[in-house]
Amino acid sequence: MNKSLTFIENNHKKEKPKTKEIPFGRTFTDHMFLMDYEEGKGWHEPRIAPYEPLTLDPAAMIFHYGQTVFEGLKAYRTDDDRILLFRPEKNFERLNQSSDRLSIPPIDEDEVMGYLKELLKVEKDWVPSFEGTSLYIRPFIIATEPNLAVSPSKRYTFMIILSPVGPYFSGGIHPVTINVEEKFTRAVKGGTGMAKTAGNYSSGYQAQAKASQTGNNDVLWLDGIEKRYIEEVGSMNIFFKIDGEVVTPALSGSILRGITRTSILEVLNEWDIPVTERRITIEEVYQAYEDGKLEEAFGTGTAAVISPVGTFNWNGKQIVINNHDIGPLSQKLYDTITGIQRGRKEDTYNWTVEV
Amino acid sequence: MNKSLTFIENNHKKEKPKTKEIPFGRTFTDHMFLMDYEEGKGWHEPRIAPYEPLTLDPAAMIFHYGQTVFEGLKAYRTDDDRILLFRPEKNFERLNQSSDRLSIPPIDEDEVMGYLKELLKVEKDWVPSFEGTSLYIRPFIIATEPNLAVSPSKRYTFMIILSPVGPYFSGGIHPVTINVEEKFTRAVKGGTGMAKTAGNYSSGYQAQAKASQTGNNDVLWLDGIEKRYIEEVGSMNIFFKIDGEVVTPALSGSILRGITRTSILEVLNEWDIPVTERRITIEEVYQAYEDGKLEEAFGTGTAAVISPVGTFNWNGKQIVINNHDIGPLSQKLYDTITGIQRGRKEDTYNWTVEV
Ligand SMILES: Cc1ncc(COP(=O)(O)O)c(C=O)c1O
Ligand SMILES: Cc1ncc(COP(=O)(O)O)c(C=O)c1O
Repeated sequence: MNKSLTFIENNHKKEKPKTKEIPFGRTFTDHMFLMDYEEGKGWHEPRIAPYEPLTLDPAAMIFHYGQTVFEGLKAYRTDDDRILLFRPEKNFERLNQSSDRLSIPPIDEDEVMGYLKELLKVEKDWVPSFEGTSLYIRPFIIATEPNLAVSPSKRYTFMIILSPVGPYFSGGIHPVTINVEEKFTRAVKGGTGMAKTAGNYSSGYQAQAKASQTGNNDVLWLDGIEKRYIEEVGSMNIFFKIDGEVVTPALSGSILRGITRTSILEVLNEWDIPVTERRITIEEVYQAYEDGKLEEAFGTGTAAVISPVGTFNWNGKQIVINNHDIGPLSQKLYDTITGIQRGRKEDTYNWTVEV
Repeated sequence: MNKSLTFIENNHKKEKPKTKEIPFGRTFTDHMFLMDYEEGKGWHEPRIAPYEPLTLDPAAMIFHYGQTVFEGLKAYRTDDDRILLFRPEKNFERLNQSSDRLSIPPIDEDEVMGYLKELLKVEKDWVPSFEGTSLYIRPFIIATEPNLAVSPSKRYTFMIILSPVGPYFSGGIHPVTINVEEKFTRAVKGGTGMAKTAGNYSSGYQAQAKASQTGNNDVLWLDGIEKRYIEEVGSMNIFFKIDGEVVTPALSGSILRGITRTSILEVLNEWDIPVTERRITIEEVYQAYEDGKLEEAFGTGTAAVISPVGTFNWNGKQIVINNHDIGPLSQKLYDTITGIQRGRKEDTYNWTVEV
């Protein structure tokens, strides 16, 4: 589409997965997209090239000061063999928001959308067709200038790599158990919590390990200031249904603006189900549980779409929701969003983009 | 020293800097140290090899989730041509503390100290001899497993690269102007502030840019919770002399445990100058200034050793210290520490290690 896009074909094609059991994030396709940035020159040399190792100076700033942002979205194969993306423009919009926080120069969102589509055309046979599978898309930008000064890099590389992935839930949705983290903090106002940047993720590994050692699947983060207000789960936003009303934490400056979250809010409004974005404490959720008013809880994100929560472990107390079964609203939202994503339900919202 | 250490010589030696005007962090020596980690195998294959680009899969975890730690120290050439390190064991101790927070496997501190010494023997001619210069040493660990799952890497590379650097202050010490940051936050309790990890640094670029646009040299960070308690400066810890007493913020869990800071505390104790580590607010500093009791303020760190503060800009108010001149205590501490580091003063503390 863009005349300047170069294509270097990979003549050593890999084998594609033959079943739906594809472990997350370890298989990559034959090609990737790359584009470089240099101060004074801007973004240049967009190219689709063989997926192969990068060559970087040991002093490249990405290794020392973490100047990097990323995104995550999926391409789905429909039953009639079309390839659909779900609100991809939102990912590039958020990438630029993340870049702004990390002092990385913005990309041209429309132009990059064009490059992504070209890459997907080249790799279309890599979008798996087994039930529940998809092609995970990882755009990311890294600072490449070799310089140990603590200041923004003058050079960057933007890349898109692709990875076929299996279903998030093997054997159908099952509610998860989540530990409410009291000690570690993910992010705080004024920090980088609203940006999708590398450092936000490895900083959670200690809490994640602690959670899984005690039988939990994931971590619920509380705010960094009072350690009471609910923020989000590992890689998901969180929703509660309390006494007929849906509540999700308001964007506080330290929560990621999830695209699934935004979509759920729009669907609930469309369905006339009362929903509010506001501050909500873990005590309030516990009280609702004790009062028998906590009807459902679910995480939302690209990976799982909807991940119902069966149990929260909080400070020795257990909050068990809906008998650890998936609730009707969670199920209906899951069916609706995944139906639209996979072209099985009419896309009245105009959310999908065909490649 | 260690039998298993391999040495691959670089036969294309670069030219060494010929003056003391060496920009920070852009010139690297001919060799570097590397060692790999693999789950089940531990750290292995220690080697000194030519300084050259790294080859990494685009899915290497360092690019996506920021699992990385680093250190910074210097080698100094004495007037009688010996090469001294300043408390290097503290850097490897802190590296392991940082690694613990980032779920990175520890290194053997003594073993790595041996490798560093071997590397410095190979590169000894790169330790510059011009007044105020030194060889900056950057040990770092990066997660290298190609995997997009949000969990600790099973593979790492530990490296040491070396960079000759010029004097921090060209033309003698001059006090700096520092902006007190009210909006952005560097770190918060429960986060990664006490670790030397990449993400802590690029997250400060916005505040840094704002500071320099308004004529400041650096940023003073306040705590992430009440935005009142003083934490540290960009890459330095901070000290105040108020009414004859020296005060530095206590290690709060979100401040780096600076090795220069620790050393200053020991020197002040030795000199019988009253010094306390405690919480201190910016209001208290301002009040001391208004009362005419703020005698000195200085940052401490490997780069500058002592960096006197001439002015703090806080919320439209100015705190001018000592007429923007270096104070006697700052000068005496600077002379003492740099004297020990460069072998010009007797090292009664046993801090230097000869290579
Ligand atoms: C920290 C965090 N929160 C929430 C989400 C959910 O966002 P989205 O719905 O856009 O996938 C993600 C995943 O992208 C995430 O990494
Ligand atoms: C955030 C931060 N604080 C303080 C310091 C000072 O520490 P040190 O005295 O060990 O150099 C550094 C530099 O290493 C730093 O990066």
